[in-house]
Amino acid sequence: MKNDFFARHQATLEQAIKAAETRGYWSPYPETPSPKVYGETGAADGEAAFKARLNKPFHLDQPGVVGVVGAERSPWGFDLGIAYPKENLDVLLPAMEKLIPQWRDAGIEGRVGVCLEILDRLNKRTHEIAQAVMHTSGQGYMMAFQAGGPHAQDRGLEAVTYAYMEMRRTPATAYWEKPQGKYDPLKMTKTFHIVPRGLALVIGCGTFPTWNTYPGLFASLATGNPVIVKPHPRAILPAAISVEIARQVLKEAGFDPNIVCLAADTVDAPITKDIALRPEIKIIDFTGSTAFGDWLEQNARQALVYTEKAGVNSVVIDSVDDLSGMVRNLTTTLCLYSGQMCTTPQNFFVPKGGITAGGQHLSFDEVAKAIAGGVEKMTADGEKAAPLLGGIQSPDTVKRLADATKLAEVVLPSKELKTAALPDATVRSPLLLKTDAKHPELWSEERFGPIYFIIATDSTDDSIRLVKDLVKKKGAITSGIYSTDEKVLAKMEEAMMEAGVALSCNLTGGVFVNQTAAFSDYHATGANPAANACLADAAFVANRFRVVQSRRAAA
Amino acid sequence: MKNDFFARHQATLEQAIKAAETRGYWSPYPETPSPKVYGETGAADGEAAFKARLNKPFHLDQPGVVGVVGAERSPWGFDLGIAYPKENLDVLLPAMEKLIPQWRDAGIEGRVGVCLEILDRLNKRTHEIAQAVMHTSGQGYMMAFQAGGPHAQDRGLEAVTYAYMEMRRTPATAYWEKPQGKYDPLKMTKTFHIVPRGLALVIGCGTFPTWNTYPGLFASLATGNPVIVKPHPRAILPAAISVEIARQVLKEAGFDPNIVCLAADTVDAPITKDIALRPEIKIIDFTGSTAFGDWLEQNARQALVYTEKAGVNSVVIDSVDDLSGMVRNLTTTLCLYSGQMCTTPQNFFVPKGGITAGGQHLSFDEVAKAIAGGVEKMTADGEKAAPLLGGIQSPDTVKRLADATKLAEVVLPSKELKTAALPDATVRSPLLLKTDAKHPELWSEERFGPIYFIIATDSTDDSIRLVKDLVKKKGAITSGIYSTDEKVLAKMEEAMMEAGVALSCNLTGGVFVNQTAAFSDYHATGANPAANACLADAAFVANRFRVVQSRRAAA
Repeated sequence: MKNDFFARHQATLEQAIKAAETRGYWSPYPETPSPKVYGETGAADGEAAFKARLNKPFHLDQPGVVGVVGAERSPWGFDLGIAYPKENLDVLLPAMEKLIPQWRDAGIEGRVGVCLEILDRLNKRTHEIAQAVMHTSGQGYMMAFQAGGPHAQDRGLEAVTYAYMEMRRTPATAYWEKPQGKYDPLKMTKTFHIVPRGLALVIGCGTFPTWNTYPGLFASLATGNPVIVKPHPRAILPAAISVEIARQVLKEAGFDPNIVCLAADTVDAPITKDIALRPEIKIIDFTGSTAFGDWLEQNARQALVYTEKAGVNSVVIDSVDDLSGMVRNLTTTLCLYSGQMCTTPQNFFVPKGGITAGGQHLSFDEVAKAIAGGVEKMTADGEKAAPLLGGIQSPDTVKRLADATKLAEVVLPSKELKTAALPDATVRSPLLLKTDAKHPELWSEERFGPIYFIIATDSTDDSIRLVKDLVKKKGAITSGIYSTDEKVLAKMEEAMMEAGVALSCNLTGGVFVNQTAAFSDYHATGANPAANACLADAAFVANRFRVVQSRRAAA
Repeated sequence: MKNDFFARHQATLEQAIKAAETRGYWSPYPETPSPKVYGETGAADGEAAFKARLNKPFHLDQPGVVGVVGAERSPWGFDLGIAYPKENLDVLLPAMEKLIPQWRDAGIEGRVGVCLEILDRLNKRTHEIAQAVMHTSGQGYMMAFQAGGPHAQDRGLEAVTYAYMEMRRTPATAYWEKPQGKYDPLKMTKTFHIVPRGLALVIGCGTFPTWNTYPGLFASLATGNPVIVKPHPRAILPAAISVEIARQVLKEAGFDPNIVCLAADTVDAPITKDIALRPEIKIIDFTGSTAFGDWLEQNARQALVYTEKAGVNSVVIDSVDDLSGMVRNLTTTLCLYSGQMCTTPQNFFVPKGGITAGGQHLSFDEVAKAIAGGVEKMTADGEKAAPLLGGIQSPDTVKRLADATKLAEVVLPSKELKTAALPDATVRSPLLLKTDAKHPELWSEERFGPIYFIIATDSTDDSIRLVKDLVKKKGAITSGIYSTDEKVLAKMEEAMMEAGVALSCNLTGGVFVNQTAAFSDYHATGANPAANACLADAAFVANRFRVVQSRRAAA
């Protein structure tokens, strides 16, 4: 190998291992877009680099290019006009398969070193990637910077860290000597090879084109599997830039850059099913709809399939000391990227008899009104609210939001917001509805986007039971509760443990139920229908490679 | 918990962890049936205990017992006459599901301690279990003792060890503090719960009723999943005794013994499919036929399915220094339990132009004759050979062996052997056939039992290619090669790495290609069609539990 990337990043890796084991706060990638960290001209340079990509072909020197493809439009109101290479799979996949021995023989440190260098360069290019994330997902710039940059890089590093820990469990060689009583002992030398499964496919989503792509990409790559990144047709650019950077690092390290390739498509002519069923594909990581995730699990039987699908997240409101803290916290949670996060709660279960808040009784309607008031205030000014709300990523979500108004009694209507700088942006404020536990047909389905239900229940016990049953049936990535009663908190914790979903209790400050911290919070559990895996843990990586041994009698 | 079994066995566990990491020789369970180790009257006591089980009901106080079932017959020539409880699954499974919180809340050390105590007691009962293994599998007593006793216990301990290592990766609690520049840091406390998947089903095989059952049993049990053991209908007793011991330990530790239950059936009225498709079953471990393993993988979609199925194992003979050592070694390999091991090679690929052996040229026919001569000598005396050959376990195998004579030219016919002590035993010597690489229809199918092919190839390169293709297509658990040329050995090692199968080189002494050592050799790879998992490694255990977290703002 030409460059010793492993040595360059070994100290970071050692810290990452410690963080994954102790699960305190840690990140090597600063989340502030400060000029001191990302350069005095970093923001401007990133924007210029993004703009230079627009309205022209995105060149990747891959095998089997037979044309161009791409039809991205920014939710902030303009077409990207970028043409990506269109691939002939019959050429691309066999060419990538030929690279398996090369990448396998790079060894654990060789591969992990390349992955760590890619992550480091992704970090240095955060401003450019943030622009690409903003103008495909519709996220506001600050969120695109953080979630699309350092937080995504953290999750990628987390996957590499787990892969490294798992691969180095097995020694490269061993000496085995078995006593035979009065006879000579049996003596063997053994060699253990870490071998990959084959080619890996990572299927990205439109809302978090890097955050949800990096864990699978780096888990498969570190464990020796060449990777095809198939981004969502509405969010190709962030993946394409990431692939370009990965290929550059591979080349510099003396490997064939085709160990990482891009396969792009459009909404009208999707290619994902074709790739997913190819016999060369042995690992698939998917984030997206339950329907397509289930289809992959049922049909792509030649591959290990890791899916993060849809769920319905809920919060139980029982009682609270700091009402304004709760309202502030939930308001941000509801506004952040207009509910287009798989972690945002859709349902808020409140006893119909009301709650105790700061020692005072608050009726069900007063609770609903308090939350609605917070949201109304935060979204009063389109100019200020747009960076937090972001744009609505998919036309389907715009329609779903409009239709939802008819579902139940409106507590707070959704507004169309305008910003002077981006007059064609698709920005909407959250819709708050109120209903009853007796109408599960309303709240037991995921209604993706800024659509929220405040649901009247018989009691907090009833709320907890409803959430538990809903998680077991429909899945969830997160759950939350507000209660001043330790017994209620314990009951909720037990119920969520049984349902298999992560719980956040009494969040009133700067931590939100829809945000998780890499190396500390596990994202998804793999224990309910919303996801069949957790990003990332040992199970997420340990089966992406196998150990093949060779033994012979020792001299 | 009433007994601190974890503390009692912690030193053993620590040694096991070290062994799994360094992969040298280690076992806490002596493989010698010596009276010094297993008691002066151990062998006689074990036989008496076995005989006391015959011709009566085997009592297990399980929920949902609705009758009795069982029709075992020893391949050594007599009916066991034991009646096991027959279960109503609609009672048994819900009753076991109710025990999940109890077993989960026992915690990592509570569960691992119980598992270690069960293994210790299984070890102390080895002579009794060996009798049960002998008279169900048909193995000779020495093999039944070792493979059914300490070697099986080793594999069980290995599974517990990996489970312990994986579960304790995650701390029980963590403190997270994220700096916020000039503002107060964000502070959270986090709790991480290890939660099981649900009920686990272990489906045993008839030839290795404990060795192939213990890894899945202990992997699931240690990670919190109550386990139903469904033994092969021809080999229930070894599993029933193991379950009885597990239940006794659970009870002594203060748990409900129904955390481990037996579900027995007969060949004529199998119940495995019914249990396997039940929604309560979340994990399945299976050893047996490819057809049934594939069926489970395709149909039991509610569960994680770990399968060890059939494969076709091969040995390449290129050149050898120590011809008589090779012949001795292969002779034992071919005779041992009459080829009824998933690890025994069926095919021996030899260049049609012959090989160099100890500096002399040996023709293809001379190689075949040398191996046949070794087998003939070893099986000349029925009395001496029977303990090594064992009995033929299944009537299907007897028929297959008889029919195989017509497949190709016979190098050494199979004989019916008689022993005076067990005149009704079903003992057969190996059948050696010779054929050509051009007849894959003969040797590319698994022909379970003592049926072997010596196959003429164009060259060793041709032999290696044929083995590689065969492993990729049909699967294999083992492979072997004899060569004095390092370049040939390297080529074979590379080919087997690509095919994903373990390789043994130049075995001429007391280690056989069909034997693996726990904590050192991985059994199966999960990288070829013979098995979708390895027994045992991190991937075998890491997904049997999930982590569910709870977090709240720190004071």
